[in-house]
Amino acid sequence: MPLDETAEGVYAIAPTPFHPDGRIDHDSVDRMTDAYVAAGCTGITVLGIMGEAPKLEPAESLEIAGRIIRRAGLPIVVGVSSPGFAAMRSLARGVMEMGAAGVMIAPPPSLRTDDQIVTYFRQAVEAIGDDIPWVLQDYPLTLSVVMTPAVIRRIVMDSPSCRMLKHEDWPGLEKISALRGFQKDGSLRPLSILCGNGGLFLDFEMERGADGAMTGYAFPEMLVDVVRLQKAGERDAAHDLFDAHLPLVRYEQQQGVGLAVRKYVMHRRGILTSDAQRTPAGKLTPAAKAEVDYLLSRVARVDRRAAVG
Amino acid sequence: MPLDETAEGVYAIAPTPFHPDGRIDHDSVDRMTDAYVAAGCTGITVLGIMGEAPKLEPAESLEIAGRIIRRAGLPIVVGVSSPGFAAMRSLARGVMEMGAAGVMIAPPPSLRTDDQIVTYFRQAVEAIGDDIPWVLQDYPLTLSVVMTPAVIRRIVMDSPSCRMLKHEDWPGLEKISALRGFQKDGSLRPLSILCGNGGLFLDFEMERGADGAMTGYAFPEMLVDVVRLQKAGERDAAHDLFDAHLPLVRYEQQQGVGLAVRKYVMHRRGILTSDAQRTPAGKLTPAAKAEVDYLLSRVARVDRRAAVG
Amino acid sequence: MPLDETAEGVYAIAPTPFHPDGRIDHDSVDRMTDAYVAAGCTGITVLGIMGEAPKLEPAESLEIAGRIIRRAGLPIVVGVSSPGFAAMRSLARGVMEMGAAGVMIAPPPSLRTDDQIVTYFRQAVEAIGDDIPWVLQDYPLTLSVVMTPAVIRRIVMDSPSCRMLKHEDWPGLEKISALRGFQKDGSLRPLSILCGNGGLFLDFEMERGADGAMTGYAFPEMLVDVVRLQKAGERDAAHDLFDAHLPLVRYEQQQGVGLAVRKYVMHRRGILTSDAQRTPAGKLTPAAKAEVDYLLSRVARVDRRAAVG
Amino acid sequence: MPLDETAEGVYAIAPTPFHPDGRIDHDSVDRMTDAYVAAGCTGITVLGIMGEAPKLEPAESLEIAGRIIRRAGLPIVVGVSSPGFAAMRSLARGVMEMGAAGVMIAPPPSLRTDDQIVTYFRQAVEAIGDDIPWVLQDYPLTLSVVMTPAVIRRIVMDSPSCRMLKHEDWPGLEKISALRGFQKDGSLRPLSILCGNGGLFLDFEMERGADGAMTGYAFPEMLVDVVRLQKAGERDAAHDLFDAHLPLVRYEQQQGVGLAVRKYVMHRRGILTSDAQRTPAGKLTPAAKAEVDYLLSRVARVDRRAAVG
Repeated sequence: MPLDETAEGVYAIAPTPFHPDGRIDHDSVDRMTDAYVAAGCTGITVLGIMGEAPKLEPAESLEIAGRIIRRAGLPIVVGVSSPGFAAMRSLARGVMEMGAAGVMIAPPPSLRTDDQIVTYFRQAVEAIGDDIPWVLQDYPLTLSVVMTPAVIRRIVMDSPSCRMLKHEDWPGLEKISALRGFQKDGSLRPLSILCGNGGLFLDFEMERGADGAMTGYAFPEMLVDVVRLQKAGERDAAHDLFDAHLPLVRYEQQQGVGLAVRKYVMHRRGILTSDAQRTPAGKLTPAAKAEVDYLLSRVARVDRRAAVG
Repeated sequence: MPLDETAEGVYAIAPTPFHPDGRIDHDSVDRMTDAYVAAGCTGITVLGIMGEAPKLEPAESLEIAGRIIRRAGLPIVVGVSSPGFAAMRSLARGVMEMGAAGVMIAPPPSLRTDDQIVTYFRQAVEAIGDDIPWVLQDYPLTLSVVMTPAVIRRIVMDSPSCRMLKHEDWPGLEKISALRGFQKDGSLRPLSILCGNGGLFLDFEMERGADGAMTGYAFPEMLVDVVRLQKAGERDAAHDLFDAHLPLVRYEQQQGVGLAVRKYVMHRRGILTSDAQRTPAGKLTPAAKAEVDYLLSRVARVDRRAAVG
Repeated sequence: MPLDETAEGVYAIAPTPFHPDGRIDHDSVDRMTDAYVAAGCTGITVLGIMGEAPKLEPAESLEIAGRIIRRAGLPIVVGVSSPGFAAMRSLARGVMEMGAAGVMIAPPPSLRTDDQIVTYFRQAVEAIGDDIPWVLQDYPLTLSVVMTPAVIRRIVMDSPSCRMLKHEDWPGLEKISALRGFQKDGSLRPLSILCGNGGLFLDFEMERGADGAMTGYAFPEMLVDVVRLQKAGERDAAHDLFDAHLPLVRYEQQQGVGLAVRKYVMHRRGILTSDAQRTPAGKLTPAAKAEVDYLLSRVARVDRRAAVG
Repeated sequence: MPLDETAEGVYAIAPTPFHPDGRIDHDSVDRMTDAYVAAGCTGITVLGIMGEAPKLEPAESLEIAGRIIRRAGLPIVVGVSSPGFAAMRSLARGVMEMGAAGVMIAPPPSLRTDDQIVTYFRQAVEAIGDDIPWVLQDYPLTLSVVMTPAVIRRIVMDSPSCRMLKHEDWPGLEKISALRGFQKDGSLRPLSILCGNGGLFLDFEMERGADGAMTGYAFPEMLVDVVRLQKAGERDAAHDLFDAHLPLVRYEQQQGVGLAVRKYVMHRRGILTSDAQRTPAGKLTPAAKAEVDYLLSRVARVDRRAAVG
């Protein structure tokens, strides 16, 4: 099932589970995969920026991607961003052979001008081959590469194999409206737009025309419900659920420690055996863990799924 | 009343009100000043980054600062950050003569090493004179200058006239704990810590030891109440009120358009005659304004002060 | 004599002479002005990035610009880059009233996308008025704003009052060729191109089609001669003279200390009474001064004008 | 022969030779290795930033490093900088088993504070093992990480296996003096300092106390001679030779196209069969090639080794 432009719903950004000694925790990989399926996710994204992908050796990357592909029964997108095209190509072709639905590519931070950005993605597609469906990641806050809607349109129109935008500009609501406007005026072909940034603006992103979310919030069930409610036109209900989780979403969306929060919550939920990260890692102090516990207890007053432990 | 290290409560970051043609709107300056006083603010900060200070001519800066100083009856902090020390000095000494309580200085984005940062603030204090109480602004997200707690300690211990930290690192909770830890171990003298970032983490910042907020959220009443409730030990009540506002706080805390949101809400509240900014300005589309209106209506279900218009 | 697109030769970038106590050194301003005229410069640029402009108060900026305008009898370009358009406008209109030939505008470092850059210059021209001839400064190494030739073309074609490009991209030879190519194919109107970067590539920049130099090398006589020789087709002679100075040009072209080197050499030449800078300043150690002295002695073996002291 | 702190002379930074179709050109690898030996280099550095290392697959990296190690009979330093410690470790241990003399590590561009930098290198040494001699690369212009002399001292004193500084700060002369001063006052242990930046300041770097060069200028013979002459106290002769090459050194030291110039000259010299780079690559236009040819002819008037073709 190759990725196409009709993709919607929630693609969970999967962290990579480790044992405290740094080995990959395969049991947790499996439990996590099952949890995403049970939560109603429509896909899973592995080896993303939040998946500690650069900390893996190439063989480990292939192993994790393969394991999740075989188990999930859902379309799997694999992050293949790399400082060089040779490594990007070998990972991309390797995971597609294993059955991935597509790959995701982020721009390197050195790009500045519109032309540099467009050229980079053209070369990347030449490197991996134009038969591999791919997702364009737009994440200026971390990558410092700023793409206007017109640049995204150039990239998408240049490459028929680009099927999806992982939208995580911040602020980004007007960008969704601009891209949907391009489609209305006929200058942009159909394109799936899934939103990231931990879900911090998912409530309104859906109203602006997004197809769903691609992010790693530790309760994907909430993301699934908000996407469903918004599509059903139940605006107030969508916001009510979203707002109940927002204090925790906001806490998780802290640069540098966000992944530690996410893994800690998934550990508290019984999905991960350990919240370990490979070095270098942002760590949670006892004070921070107590704050997350308090937030969980408050979310649980509205959404019982947050009642952990 | 010069600023000292016992400052607490809420210092509102004041925007600069303009007429649609770009002239300063003095009536709105006065109404805004009165609104901050009525909201229970303990101080006001003018000419900050969100105050469009670089868009003003020197004479305008002095005029606005003076007008607010004369009217408010509260301690006024004036942002004096400048590309050069000559302009910093003349503004700082000018506003102190008018009765300001202190000035605020942010580091220029070019600073990188610990020593460069420490040296810059030593030179800045030499430039303005060591008799002027000043606030150290720590705002890496916008300024790209990263100060460790140990560097902040060096700056504060070097300069007796530094009285306050405007804390807006993100994430920043551990930084508050580290600084308060320095004070417990005797290596840092007393220092007021007021938090920024639109209030996005004020709920927990108070629990980590902050003295209050210095930020410009369009409902300073909420900030005042959260600070008061946390100091009174009413944790759940503080979070309940905070969480009711959080969807709007989050919406206002978008880089680039945040000031437009803030001015729009203050206009809806009847404080500003117009939400105009001087060029260049982030503008709100009709869709964005409708989103803010919707958020206001949702906040108003819990906090009637948000029922506008 | 307003600046127009036929400008050529050497516009010296003037430093601002100070006394050791930080006051402006008017006698040195006059001597420096006379030295530029005597060296054969066709114009002078004041208040540029290397002119310590941000360290001046607005009144000082006007005073220095006016003094040089009145004395030189050459077209004077004044740097008016500013964090805000109000200050940019008042300085620009002030110096034009005093008789400046034009102003120079550099982009603020926050700009990223092509559209952001184009929009900024359109707003800047609206701010200062479209009756003021202006120079577009393209200086990515210091400003971190990267403009493609196509973006420069958009800016120039949008603004008839843009008369000159101060070219200091690095590397930048192909950019000159691209712009001259645009003019050959009719898509770009006539435009003066003067090159900066301390003259480090002036030998080849002339061969690619530049009209001259706008930079502050402490021996503008060399720049004047290289421009003249290249225009006369005396390629080898131009390179011979250039190469004799290159070790010193290279030494002067060090980020951060370059201005200290330049002022030191101008002091050794008897043009400046002191090599003082206002704080913050890069300073030369005795070892560095001895290195400059050694380089001067080596240059003097070929070019007697470098025999100082 | 493991790298130690007595290393001196010239370590050539080796580019990676490719065929025009992107395959590694093994014949050219061998010819290049022999040429470095013949030029009098005391070591070779492979897989550096200029070696297109990120464009190689892990197996290719090992293959190239191994081939040069076996052939050269000189100490070989291998660049192992990587976004993650797992890949850094496996490459470092792999090349040491093959007989490398040491590895080189550059900081990732995200580091800002002194403590972040020191911590990163401590973790890197833990990752590769403290039995591997390593070179600290200090290259702010490209990496945007600024290390003060005091930070370098902390790193070196923390890690006995750090044996060398690849110095390429710009400007950097005072940094060499500061580090040598630390050694005089006993606060820094012995450390080899080899200088980079294409050799642009090698003339004075030797006088400040450097032990030699580690850079990739296409005529390592000149670097070898300048190092030798300076050590022999023949200052004027060193500068005479250096200055004859400086116009070409300067041309080669252009960000982005520098590698293209270097490969072109090595191709003209008969060392590389092709000047091909893997994508993405800075390319030389015919105009640029003609400029390099002209510069070669001018250098050859003084140094016959530059008479190519």
